[in-house]
Amino acid sequence: MSGSISPLAPTHVPELPPIDGVTLATGAAGIKYPNRTDVVLALLAPGTTTAGVLTRSKCPSAPVDWCREKLKSGKARALVVNSGNANAFTGRTGRAATALTAKLAAEAANCSTSEVLLASTGVIGEPLPATKFADVMGDLARSAQPDIWIDAAKAIMTTDTFPKVATATAKLGSATVVINGIAKGAGMIAPDMATMLSFVFTDAPLSATALQGLLKAAVADTFNAVTVDGDTSTSDTLLAFATGAAAERGAPRISRAADPRLRGFAKAFQSVLASLAEQVARDGEGARKLVEIIVEGAASQASARKIARSIANSPLVKTAIAGEDANWGRVVMAVGKAGEPADRDKLSIWFGGIRVAQRGARDPNYDEAAVSAVMKKPEITLKVALGMGKGRDRILTCDLTKEYVAINGDYRS
Amino acid sequence: MSGSISPLAPTHVPELPPIDGVTLATGAAGIKYPNRTDVVLALLAPGTTTAGVLTRSKCPSAPVDWCREKLKSGKARALVVNSGNANAFTGRTGRAATALTAKLAAEAANCSTSEVLLASTGVIGEPLPATKFADVMGDLARSAQPDIWIDAAKAIMTTDTFPKVATATAKLGSATVVINGIAKGAGMIAPDMATMLSFVFTDAPLSATALQGLLKAAVADTFNAVTVDGDTSTSDTLLAFATGAAAERGAPRISRAADPRLRGFAKAFQSVLASLAEQVARDGEGARKLVEIIVEGAASQASARKIARSIANSPLVKTAIAGEDANWGRVVMAVGKAGEPADRDKLSIWFGGIRVAQRGARDPNYDEAAVSAVMKKPEITLKVALGMGKGRDRILTCDLTKEYVAINGDYRS
Repeated sequence: MSGSISPLAPTHVPELPPIDGVTLATGAAGIKYPNRTDVVLALLAPGTTTAGVLTRSKCPSAPVDWCREKLKSGKARALVVNSGNANAFTGRTGRAATALTAKLAAEAANCSTSEVLLASTGVIGEPLPATKFADVMGDLARSAQPDIWIDAAKAIMTTDTFPKVATATAKLGSATVVINGIAKGAGMIAPDMATMLSFVFTDAPLSATALQGLLKAAVADTFNAVTVDGDTSTSDTLLAFATGAAAERGAPRISRAADPRLRGFAKAFQSVLASLAEQVARDGEGARKLVEIIVEGAASQASARKIARSIANSPLVKTAIAGEDANWGRVVMAVGKAGEPADRDKLSIWFGGIRVAQRGARDPNYDEAAVSAVMKKPEITLKVALGMGKGRDRILTCDLTKEYVAINGDYRS
Repeated sequence: MSGSISPLAPTHVPELPPIDGVTLATGAAGIKYPNRTDVVLALLAPGTTTAGVLTRSKCPSAPVDWCREKLKSGKARALVVNSGNANAFTGRTGRAATALTAKLAAEAANCSTSEVLLASTGVIGEPLPATKFADVMGDLARSAQPDIWIDAAKAIMTTDTFPKVATATAKLGSATVVINGIAKGAGMIAPDMATMLSFVFTDAPLSATALQGLLKAAVADTFNAVTVDGDTSTSDTLLAFATGAAAERGAPRISRAADPRLRGFAKAFQSVLASLAEQVARDGEGARKLVEIIVEGAASQASARKIARSIANSPLVKTAIAGEDANWGRVVMAVGKAGEPADRDKLSIWFGGIRVAQRGARDPNYDEAAVSAVMKKPEITLKVALGMGKGRDRILTCDLTKEYVAINGDYRS
């Protein structure tokens, strides 16, 4: 945890209501530092369904392997998340640590180990001392409460400077259902499906299949549309849990994501993920600017995404933005290196609402002073129009500052 | 030009001998700054052949477009290089500027405009005031000399902190031939064939086809195996010129790159390119460490290259090295995100000669003190063995420091 809060942190933190069927507890297991809250236990009512999307890294962490296996059943009764140690690249020891953690949680939650999901974040390559969970797991289960969402969000922070929470409600049949989400992430952010750790809970009665469908649809433009440094974590984990408790209040049981009754819910669900993903960009390590990249007129949507990523991950674009320099030449460079269909003579570029380049050359009305004023703002939209087709994409990123280098030049010590 | 020279600059600068058929001149055309040497003219004897590799950027600069067209003939009589302005993304104005520059050079060199090659480096998007060349071109042609290689290398610098030159000789038949090269480049370095600007000259009597073959073979492991920031320039240009003057001293005329008589020459030619490419990495903006990345045991050579690039361009790996932190977990992350065949449980990693990770877990003999000592050195080799196949690759990069951010946060002003 860093000392100073990101200047881009949300000014308003919503209060998260309880969700029927979910209780939470946090504790200090001493995983990396003594007396620091570093573990969260979520207890889930019987019948809770689950779904998830996990990192596509070829070197995933042990808890990612664990979740990939256990998600197949679509059922969950407990979730254990720890910070301080990612249990990644820990070989056989890592697998033993996940098994032990799940056993301790299953005993405490009175369920099967196959109903326990796990996530870890922190240093890679250090063995996770899972035996330390033995001292705290029973207490956690006994003290779990429905209304400590912000504490849970704080307990999973690493280099994050603020806890990330989001909430929404939706009508499902005659019932109002709740969606709460928490997330952590600030660096190693270029999710190749989900980013870092995020957990979303609802009382809606959804089948695991429906939940998986919703999740898959929602990540594309939320967690997969944010990047801090182009680096994809070994531990990216986004899990969703649906307790189904709202069925008692009249919410219909839904088995397919395409069910038209889910339309409002899907929108609310996506808004929670979008809020959490944006908060990750706002807490990008060392970030001073939130940058929205919009690419229009690409040959296809996939092409637009690739070009948007090329711009968002370019160190030269990111340092120029840090320096409040509207260096659109570097945007041209980043478009050019993406390797996607582009024609210099059709390209136009805007910073804020101001067009700086048009059809392959500097805009004839280019006004340095007006553009400079835009660059001084904490939130900047950078738009590129390619004139090749109808592909469009939007992704969020942040600037690259000396603080990013400082934070990451000395993370382990 | 930066005030302080990179700590990684070569301690020995070779003296470049004259090459029969090549004369050089430098001048101050006032392209960006008054009274700064910013233009080089190379005059080439009649019969000089030429070959080149150019950026694969989809938004190439106007001089890159020009060279792509003119290289088809394989003949050259003059080369004009300017710094201060890249003449990139300048639209119709840019094309007019290349045509005017070539016309002025053709008049001065008494040749056809189709025998003039051009390269520009500097800011993107500003119109190049090519009319300024009119004032200096005649003087340049009249004052051209055979022995001012270092001045030419200095005239094409932008953020470079030292001029980059290399030389070698080889036997061709009974004659000794000379190969001289100059280069510039410090940022926006992730060449997708050549990097920034580099010009190589020889008196060997080679056909344009043979020269192109040699160039293509040599770039793969030299200029294409170096990266500073993963950003590919719109202006990457590597040109080679063979005056053929050594034929008078008995060197045989060679028409194919595969000619066995070229073996020694090809080796010397590659060594010149390798030296220039390494100097680019040594002058990486803000660099304090030269980093050699070796990937072994990949599924294929292409796979090894992709993984090596993923490691070399990872901001988290580069900042860790800047912080002298042997954070091999981030190497695992970078291997994982490359998307190439990899198996965590077969992966081993070395910093310097010290193995830090073995078969998917921390090396049992891991010694933090020994690794820390390696990390303090100015040159670090990072080796990854994948255990998947026989693919091997090596690329050079540098660390990512606060100085990189400072240099690039305020480049235009």
